[in-house]
Amino acid sequence: MQFPDRIKNIGLSKIVEVSEKIKLMKEKLGGEFIYFQRGIVGLPTYEGIMHGLIEAFEKGLTKYPKSGGEPWFKQSVKNYLEDRGIRVNEKNVLAVYGGQEGLQLSFSLFEGRKCLTFQPCWSCVLENIFPYNRIHVLFTNLNENFEIDFSDLEKKLKEVDVLYLNSPHNPTGKVFSEEELEKINYLCKKHNIFIISDEAYNEIIYDGKKHNSMLQFDNPNLIASFSFSKMFAATGLRLGFIVCRNKDIIGALNKAEYTQTAGVYSVGQYAIAKALNDKENREKWFNNLRKELEKRRNLMYEELSKFINTYKPEGAFYFFINLNKYIKENVKNKDEFLLRKFLEERVAIIPGSAFGKDYSGYIRISFSTANEKEIKEGISRIRKVIEKLN
Amino acid sequence: MQFPDRIKNIGLSKIVEVSEKIKLMKEKLGGEFIYFQRGIVGLPTYEGIMHGLIEAFEKGLTKYPKSGGEPWFKQSVKNYLEDRGIRVNEKNVLAVYGGQEGLQLSFSLFEGRKCLTFQPCWSCVLENIFPYNRIHVLFTNLNENFEIDFSDLEKKLKEVDVLYLNSPHNPTGKVFSEEELEKINYLCKKHNIFIISDEAYNEIIYDGKKHNSMLQFDNPNLIASFSFSKMFAATGLRLGFIVCRNKDIIGALNKAEYTQTAGVYSVGQYAIAKALNDKENREKWFNNLRKELEKRRNLMYEELSKFINTYKPEGAFYFFINLNKYIKENVKNKDEFLLRKFLEERVAIIPGSAFGKDYSGYIRISFSTANEKEIKEGISRIRKVIEKLN
Repeated sequence: MQFPDRIKNIGLSKIVEVSEKIKLMKEKLGGEFIYFQRGIVGLPTYEGIMHGLIEAFEKGLTKYPKSGGEPWFKQSVKNYLEDRGIRVNEKNVLAVYGGQEGLQLSFSLFEGRKCLTFQPCWSCVLENIFPYNRIHVLFTNLNENFEIDFSDLEKKLKEVDVLYLNSPHNPTGKVFSEEELEKINYLCKKHNIFIISDEAYNEIIYDGKKHNSMLQFDNPNLIASFSFSKMFAATGLRLGFIVCRNKDIIGALNKAEYTQTAGVYSVGQYAIAKALNDKENREKWFNNLRKELEKRRNLMYEELSKFINTYKPEGAFYFFINLNKYIKENVKNKDEFLLRKFLEERVAIIPGSAFGKDYSGYIRISFSTANEKEIKEGISRIRKVIEKLN
Repeated sequence: MQFPDRIKNIGLSKIVEVSEKIKLMKEKLGGEFIYFQRGIVGLPTYEGIMHGLIEAFEKGLTKYPKSGGEPWFKQSVKNYLEDRGIRVNEKNVLAVYGGQEGLQLSFSLFEGRKCLTFQPCWSCVLENIFPYNRIHVLFTNLNENFEIDFSDLEKKLKEVDVLYLNSPHNPTGKVFSEEELEKINYLCKKHNIFIISDEAYNEIIYDGKKHNSMLQFDNPNLIASFSFSKMFAATGLRLGFIVCRNKDIIGALNKAEYTQTAGVYSVGQYAIAKALNDKENREKWFNNLRKELEKRRNLMYEELSKFINTYKPEGAFYFFINLNKYIKENVKNKDEFLLRKFLEERVAIIPGSAFGKDYSGYIRISFSTANEKEIKEGISRIRKVIEKLN
């Protein structure tokens, strides 16, 4: 059978591929591996969620959800955003199955059209969401300090229909400043370009800073996508929401979401609403989450700084490290080469080109799933590999 | 903004539209309405599911699910199907968000191609899933007794790529016999046509009969879609599965599902696996469910038979009744006319053309959400309306 191009062109996620290789290598070598490849929070899920699930069941909220999300779900999101200084109407909110469905639905509105994205870029957008929606992709590269080249950005914005933005940024941990976001918003409005703003890591910001949402700016041509996966350490619950102030867009997204799944599972919506509405415990949880992750980031930065210069992430939970200067000229496939070298030392990383072909020779390592001992041990193994490359 | 045709062409579900009208009419008239329009089971959700959700949480199964479904989920489905006399490999099973996502994903493989479906046909397939996947639709109509015209079926099969089949059938309650299904399978194989078999009501069969699944026949070009919504009275949990013995198809469906949602929420998969694995309680629940629904069907049939001839459903939980002979020639929009007449008597129905334009003048009424008193009262109101039409 011939499948449609949009399905054929979906890549087997490089991250899934890496997981397979890790498994094989672990079987071969044995011993303790250090896992820096995972994009999950290595803490138990916020337990308020479980209480919400049970309560929803006890209340009999197990029948068809309202298409687009229950009113009390939307209200809880509205209140939560208001606590973050963002005013939205409940009508602007749509319940979705995590950040992934949020982005997939958002891009479905731009089928066959052109999108500009910063490179590096989250692998799943590149390998799954773009091909599935037949998006033609243009890139504007972040520089060595992961800063935006605004002149390149503006030049390329003129050629596209939509900009994909992600702050805090996966894989770099970069957090764009309010000024930068404002400038992006200005340029997109100037050239009449839509924005899809992926804010999946909105609560994972360090050094006491606050997340700047694109929703702070008044732009009806903005779709902002949020996830409860990182927020509540709940990647397995597949819950998130979209906000857009353009009612035609929310209407179209609602129709597409309803068609795909008939709505987000009711008990999940209830559990989230309950978790969001319990402001005191919710904020306590966020603070602890940030504190724990910041401790891990600091330790990993300290350990890395002993032998390499690297950017200190301000949000999310990744280091994205350029190793090109350590790799000999004659190495043909840098990704495979690096992955093999690190796995031989029993440390799992994601090779850079999973995030864009210009980032071959980089690695992404996550500090979210490793404890203090594992971070120290893992970074010392990375040091060993790099020293051998020299 | 111009949306892609596949999104523009999604209909506002006629059933949703009806719900809006019911709400307005209830506000206007007041009093007690009888709701026969709903496609849900009016019983509390199987409580084994809740225990599974809690246990999954306690076990920490709240992180990213395995793409396509957890091995223990697939195993539980395999065992359940084996208890129904169907042999499948775990590799043939895919976890999905209910029958809706199951069908939407299945049809995504046939984007832009031709599908034959029996008319009447579940409204959501007509209004949402076909347009979203740009399916060109051909119909073969069931006769007054909801029987298949095999000569028309074979003629039209030659013109299409895929057949959509649904047994037990929504909206008629028809259950196709093993011989009919075998003949359909034979014709599809003969003409090299794929089959998408929607078996969402597989456990809702009356008079002690057994469900015949298309999976009984050996056909790699068959995708069978199942739902836990009706099975466990759990429409709000959005859980189901797909079975296909063609590994390329399962692979493609897996990629599409992963792209859409990153997998089915882990605690839901666990709850289902636990419910399926508890064979004794599961079968007890199914038996009670069938017994309760059969009682309601019998009562509704008895009440209807006092004034009208109608088909007695063998499965699912709907009566699909032809009222054309009671409607005067000069009525232009039979759907609106009937809906209004019934709502004026405070009884909610779904007009027939929600299930295909050839079924204008029919109504679908569900016996799954009403108790004995409501069924008697609702049918007496229907009688009153029909008598007034005469």
